[in-house]
Amino acid sequence: MDLRSPALNKLIDNWLDEDLGRGDLTGVALNDTNVAAYWIAKAKGIFCGGSLVEKIFQRLDASVRVKLLILDGDCLTEGQTILELEGPPSALVAGERTALNLAMRLSGIATSTAELVKELEGTGICLCDTRKTTPGMRLFEKYAVRCGGGINHRFGLDDAAMLKENHLAWSNGIEDAVLAVKSSAPWSSKVIVEVESPEQAEEAVLAGVDGVLLDEFSPKELETLVPHLRNLAKSFVTTGGSGQIVLEASGVKPKNLKAYATSGVDLISTSAPITQSSWLDFSMRFSGLV
Amino acid sequence: MDLRSPALNKLIDNWLDEDLGRGDLTGVALNDTNVAAYWIAKAKGIFCGGSLVEKIFQRLDASVRVKLLILDGDCLTEGQTILELEGPPSALVAGERTALNLAMRLSGIATSTAELVKELEGTGICLCDTRKTTPGMRLFEKYAVRCGGGINHRFGLDDAAMLKENHLAWSNGIEDAVLAVKSSAPWSSKVIVEVESPEQAEEAVLAGVDGVLLDEFSPKELETLVPHLRNLAKSFVTTGGSGQIVLEASGVKPKNLKAYATSGVDLISTSAPITQSSWLDFSMRFSGLV
Amino acid sequence: MDLRSPALNKLIDNWLDEDLGRGDLTGVALNDTNVAAYWIAKAKGIFCGGSLVEKIFQRLDASVRVKLLILDGDCLTEGQTILELEGPPSALVAGERTALNLAMRLSGIATSTAELVKELEGTGICLCDTRKTTPGMRLFEKYAVRCGGGINHRFGLDDAAMLKENHLAWSNGIEDAVLAVKSSAPWSSKVIVEVESPEQAEEAVLAGVDGVLLDEFSPKELETLVPHLRNLAKSFVTTGGSGQIVLEASGVKPKNLKAYATSGVDLISTSAPITQSSWLDFSMRFSGLV
Amino acid sequence: MDLRSPALNKLIDNWLDEDLGRGDLTGVALNDTNVAAYWIAKAKGIFCGGSLVEKIFQRLDASVRVKLLILDGDCLTEGQTILELEGPPSALVAGERTALNLAMRLSGIATSTAELVKELEGTGICLCDTRKTTPGMRLFEKYAVRCGGGINHRFGLDDAAMLKENHLAWSNGIEDAVLAVKSSAPWSSKVIVEVESPEQAEEAVLAGVDGVLLDEFSPKELETLVPHLRNLAKSFVTTGGSGQIVLEASGVKPKNLKAYATSGVDLISTSAPITQSSWLDFSMRFSGLV
Amino acid sequence: MDLRSPALNKLIDNWLDEDLGRGDLTGVALNDTNVAAYWIAKAKGIFCGGSLVEKIFQRLDASVRVKLLILDGDCLTEGQTILELEGPPSALVAGERTALNLAMRLSGIATSTAELVKELEGTGICLCDTRKTTPGMRLFEKYAVRCGGGINHRFGLDDAAMLKENHLAWSNGIEDAVLAVKSSAPWSSKVIVEVESPEQAEEAVLAGVDGVLLDEFSPKELETLVPHLRNLAKSFVTTGGSGQIVLEASGVKPKNLKAYATSGVDLISTSAPITQSSWLDFSMRFSGLV
Amino acid sequence: MDLRSPALNKLIDNWLDEDLGRGDLTGVALNDTNVAAYWIAKAKGIFCGGSLVEKIFQRLDASVRVKLLILDGDCLTEGQTILELEGPPSALVAGERTALNLAMRLSGIATSTAELVKELEGTGICLCDTRKTTPGMRLFEKYAVRCGGGINHRFGLDDAAMLKENHLAWSNGIEDAVLAVKSSAPWSSKVIVEVESPEQAEEAVLAGVDGVLLDEFSPKELETLVPHLRNLAKSFVTTGGSGQIVLEASGVKPKNLKAYATSGVDLISTSAPITQSSWLDFSMRFSGLV
Repeated sequence: MDLRSPALNKLIDNWLDEDLGRGDLTGVALNDTNVAAYWIAKAKGIFCGGSLVEKIFQRLDASVRVKLLILDGDCLTEGQTILELEGPPSALVAGERTALNLAMRLSGIATSTAELVKELEGTGICLCDTRKTTPGMRLFEKYAVRCGGGINHRFGLDDAAMLKENHLAWSNGIEDAVLAVKSSAPWSSKVIVEVESPEQAEEAVLAGVDGVLLDEFSPKELETLVPHLRNLAKSFVTTGGSGQIVLEASGVKPKNLKAYATSGVDLISTSAPITQSSWLDFSMRFSGLV
Repeated sequence: MDLRSPALNKLIDNWLDEDLGRGDLTGVALNDTNVAAYWIAKAKGIFCGGSLVEKIFQRLDASVRVKLLILDGDCLTEGQTILELEGPPSALVAGERTALNLAMRLSGIATSTAELVKELEGTGICLCDTRKTTPGMRLFEKYAVRCGGGINHRFGLDDAAMLKENHLAWSNGIEDAVLAVKSSAPWSSKVIVEVESPEQAEEAVLAGVDGVLLDEFSPKELETLVPHLRNLAKSFVTTGGSGQIVLEASGVKPKNLKAYATSGVDLISTSAPITQSSWLDFSMRFSGLV
Repeated sequence: MDLRSPALNKLIDNWLDEDLGRGDLTGVALNDTNVAAYWIAKAKGIFCGGSLVEKIFQRLDASVRVKLLILDGDCLTEGQTILELEGPPSALVAGERTALNLAMRLSGIATSTAELVKELEGTGICLCDTRKTTPGMRLFEKYAVRCGGGINHRFGLDDAAMLKENHLAWSNGIEDAVLAVKSSAPWSSKVIVEVESPEQAEEAVLAGVDGVLLDEFSPKELETLVPHLRNLAKSFVTTGGSGQIVLEASGVKPKNLKAYATSGVDLISTSAPITQSSWLDFSMRFSGLV
Repeated sequence: MDLRSPALNKLIDNWLDEDLGRGDLTGVALNDTNVAAYWIAKAKGIFCGGSLVEKIFQRLDASVRVKLLILDGDCLTEGQTILELEGPPSALVAGERTALNLAMRLSGIATSTAELVKELEGTGICLCDTRKTTPGMRLFEKYAVRCGGGINHRFGLDDAAMLKENHLAWSNGIEDAVLAVKSSAPWSSKVIVEVESPEQAEEAVLAGVDGVLLDEFSPKELETLVPHLRNLAKSFVTTGGSGQIVLEASGVKPKNLKAYATSGVDLISTSAPITQSSWLDFSMRFSGLV
Repeated sequence: MDLRSPALNKLIDNWLDEDLGRGDLTGVALNDTNVAAYWIAKAKGIFCGGSLVEKIFQRLDASVRVKLLILDGDCLTEGQTILELEGPPSALVAGERTALNLAMRLSGIATSTAELVKELEGTGICLCDTRKTTPGMRLFEKYAVRCGGGINHRFGLDDAAMLKENHLAWSNGIEDAVLAVKSSAPWSSKVIVEVESPEQAEEAVLAGVDGVLLDEFSPKELETLVPHLRNLAKSFVTTGGSGQIVLEASGVKPKNLKAYATSGVDLISTSAPITQSSWLDFSMRFSGLV
Repeated sequence: MDLRSPALNKLIDNWLDEDLGRGDLTGVALNDTNVAAYWIAKAKGIFCGGSLVEKIFQRLDASVRVKLLILDGDCLTEGQTILELEGPPSALVAGERTALNLAMRLSGIATSTAELVKELEGTGICLCDTRKTTPGMRLFEKYAVRCGGGINHRFGLDDAAMLKENHLAWSNGIEDAVLAVKSSAPWSSKVIVEVESPEQAEEAVLAGVDGVLLDEFSPKELETLVPHLRNLAKSFVTTGGSGQIVLEASGVKPKNLKAYATSGVDLISTSAPITQSSWLDFSMRFSGLV
């Protein structure tokens, strides 16, 4: 999430216009004097989205000031003050909902991620997200995963190549598909194959991929398969193989995470922090005139 | 949600570009022959988003065909086929994630809404959404609430005027604020006030508002307050009062909904179906060549 | 008209680019020294658009300063100085035409509105605009109506529902149409029906609408119909009726406004200030170097 | 006005979204069966905007059909049918206001232009527009002037260079300013100077401009000045002068046009058809099911 | 190139987003302290693009400062320092490639133009560009031609009318085509015809055009044709002819420019500086902490 | 280059509008009858851009048909017919320049790439592009490199991480910088370091990067360094190293390519095909009525 990118400004403008429509009807009722307000957490969790809050308000009115009291990734307790704002009441009211909605959603994801990451503590296995994200929110939801202690998978169809079940059904098999991708993708892009059997996994490694996503394998199956695939990869390094291969498990239910502690995979990817989480509840409160 | 609006096309284009980035790296691996696929539900719930699916794929490739097997608002059982698609494999792969993410998110909201609506069955009280929606997704998330049996509150700061806690802190009180809004807003816009005490509620009714949002009142408090406010409104109809006033309860925890069955309010507004729901899980599967 | 909305910035940018095209060819002929200029009214009327002038120039060059000498809604006499500007000559020349065109058009509308509003003085009837506005200019033209003393009707097809002649031809009649709209529109949206006969008007009131637009009724017809409809509405308030109904006359020629003084309606809606008005003439003049 | 230009599609989309907002609330009340409708003129005049009508409706729904019964620039009598439409009722209702507003505004301009052009009939003098146009509507308003029999002046600050009163105040005089513009503008751009005295006019001709705009000269003054300037221009053709110069009168009140019949100028430029005209009134009527 | 135009901001934003994509992955590795850097020329030539460099960096981060050490159009020697920058390292890294790419491309064009202009020194013939420009870069590439000492032809299909070979094939000949264009184009637009024979050239002059583009004529042919056409134009000035006509040669290979020294044409138009030039090589170097 | 991406449509629209401006002034001179035309190559080379040509014309007019006679990447001889078009003359004229400019530029790059690729034939070393591309054209220019037989490096700052000279100056050295990037970038992104000494190269390999860009090393230096780095990488595979590392030479002058034939690197990256190439010359010719 690049706070300086022009694309971010366009996104924020679209969010604000979604709420403002043809203009806030209540602004006329408000005083002209600048006021102070603050945000309070109504539940505990991991905070996320702080750096965006000031940007959102300042797209509306450059005179609004936001002072963050905690950083993205920090723990929040119930009742904790998150940030303080100052500015014209009509600007605070106009940006309030958009800024809160974003931060509440992202903090919900960060909190949920942190809970799952905790299950894997000490195992050396990373928790990784997927492309199951709300349309238009991918950059932000994936950032929230990172704030919760997870890591990111690719951001789209273009920054790494993953051949999945449907690709294999609609192409000429793993070897050919990997070859086709490797000869047209930038050399700097990793190539990953999703597999559903040990045979497919071997085929993928022999095709020289950078990563293998092992879908719906049991922890037990992985315990033998993983070292086998790693050896296969290393033995190939002299003749075009990848050497070090990344092995990722998917299709793991959140409640079963611990069962994969000794599976030997590098990552477990799951959409749960994004698709199964609740928003953290924050509120903006009046604190006084300025 | 207006399927013909040019703004919808722009939104869908932005969603697709979010996933496509600089272009799907895997398309080159796929065959040229058109294929058939289908969507399957991996959990039961209420379906939502069907009419958007074809639009999403057709922004990518006008030759893709989508045949919906169920309608928005229909019940889905686990394992049920939702829709069938036909088209070039590279187009199906390019639109798959965006279309699934949207429908899974919206169906999750519709499902959650339906569960809460069921709690109010027979009470004559409607379940209503709020402005707590994911930035960029308001039109769709509110549509999903409707598909789940809920009703919609205003869509933004401009289509109805609501004076909330912060407005009252930053203005000269209910009467003045309502007057200011009424003299500048279109006459066709309703004016609503959020109140936290019976006194404020009376003041709002006497100011001639169209609706009063009663925040965090107990069911018992409402049982006496609601008929009092209704009478007050009616007694005023000849001298500028609203006659029929809409009374809305908010701040109600989902698990407490039933306790409000005899509170007499018209609506209970809650963000829960949008902020506390999980996505419904769907999958796109290969069915054959065409 | 929300001066802080990102959408306004986009609109102003489009206006400026319409005039600038690939860039002002004359800028190279101008000195670099900042200059002062002012706007003068070449005819009397009601001023409108002042707050937009500075915004327009500052989208081009943040160093331009605009000092308004009168406010939107104020009377202008011929020869009066409207505002003073300072900045680089090339910026003043680049924004001049766009800013003048906007303010001249809006001031023409405000002036025309004020003339019509005067006809209704003392009658308690408001003058109201319609959706007959120049494409792309609705927010601004409706704002000008307000500056001239008129009030606004809905801003689009989405912020209130009005069922008109064609709707009734293409649906199953008033009762069904109102029911359909009420069950899908946000509860916070008013529902209005345009009618052409007393029978239709009654039908609309019984359907529980918030407003009835009485099209092309004579003043005499209204004098009996209006109280009848108001009573009907009140009698219904206990069983779902609207209580207080807004009655609006339309199809009234500007010259006949006075004839409706005792018609009892709440509003007369007319497009005349927008479709039949001339622009007020302003000029930007050089006042000296800075 | 280029019907194929992508920029036109964007403009039309913006116009439609201005009226549609978050979506037409009344669409749900309409039948699904396609219907027929037509447009009728409620006053006589010159028609303009026909080719845009179909484009507007088809941006909403490609299945709408529009059959024009008269062409842009044709005379309309009161009560005449302008065009016939067919399509889904909800699409006709969604595009109706935008399409009518555009055509009514443009036809008003064309009608007003034609009235002024008639005043100049037989004089060999053309009526020409200015840059006083509604922000966002320049292409269309200038097209309407052409449909009414007028001709167009430059479209913006970039397609021809005009040095006006303020330019001269903020530069080093006519000769220098013309030279500066000529050495940086494309050679294919004409250079025009607005003058307020015969001396300035001579200076402009000697500077080799393509046109001179004679502001607020009396017909009598022009009768001697015009032939003098033409001779001056011709005498210069061998040494860099323009040879044939275009002489344009401005600041002429519409009612005084005839007084300029023998002034010898090539053009009279006036903003009146755009700034002083009323819209022509059209209505869309239901004609039956399809 | 108008540095204040909102359209320029949009273009720069698009360029930056092209490189930034979903955000610079390396920013996290950089220190927070502001740093100083400079640009150095790795080859000699004519510099172009300086004024855009600061604008590019400031769209990313308003705190970046750029100090130009030379102006557009100035000569650069190998090893010369072009400009100095200061700002946060992550902003410098994020804008570096875009700014360098632009300036290197434009300086290459300016340099190439200057070489060709030198060939025509002392002949009174101007070197002129064409519409062969990189899509999206026309304003900038044509500005670079001007910085190299060339002049600009029209910027698009709308700011002057040129009838070329295909136009003549698809219309009713020169006279008709010129007439058609003259009666619909703004009077302020020049009309030019491209011809391939002396007969066509005469026909064009008699049709009253402003310029004739003589395509692929030999220097010798031009030496007789040019004075003939000039006389023809002058003899016509009293009856609607253009008086002074601009004669332009095209289809001249860069190496043959000198052979046209005595051809008598006003301009030679060529795409070579844009289509046949190499970029000038610049590099951004670290100079220290701030 | 993804022909289905909505972003491509926006880009093409911007290109067309750049040339069309306010609309082609010459369209009125053209006949209405559809015509046929073709494109001819005026020089030999490698063709590129064919699939975009039809898309460009169809954004203007869906009725234009384009039949490609050769494919992207094919050889063109001088005088060869490239493609045939049919459609309304005004549409062909409106899209001609944009389509030709794009294809001529891209074919120039493909041709230049092919020449350099030939120098490396039989060496096993790939020719790779850089981020030195014309702003707004990166996707297309990199596609042209691929059509000429080269391969692509990363497309932006986000799809792979490269730490260059300035990064190292502004961070805490290679090890720290690589670590920082690895802990925040998606795991699917490769990490590359640009080095200027053997020591830096070793440090990079030990930091576990995926690629090392060896800048301005002589062929001789590489012959010993390359095998050393490869061994180092392999020896590390068990303890977190990359196993197979990609070694890339940069700073190689095109004329010196052959000297690197036995250097052992995987790639040589160069901007020459994009920054030092000339456009291939094509022309659109009339072939007859349809």
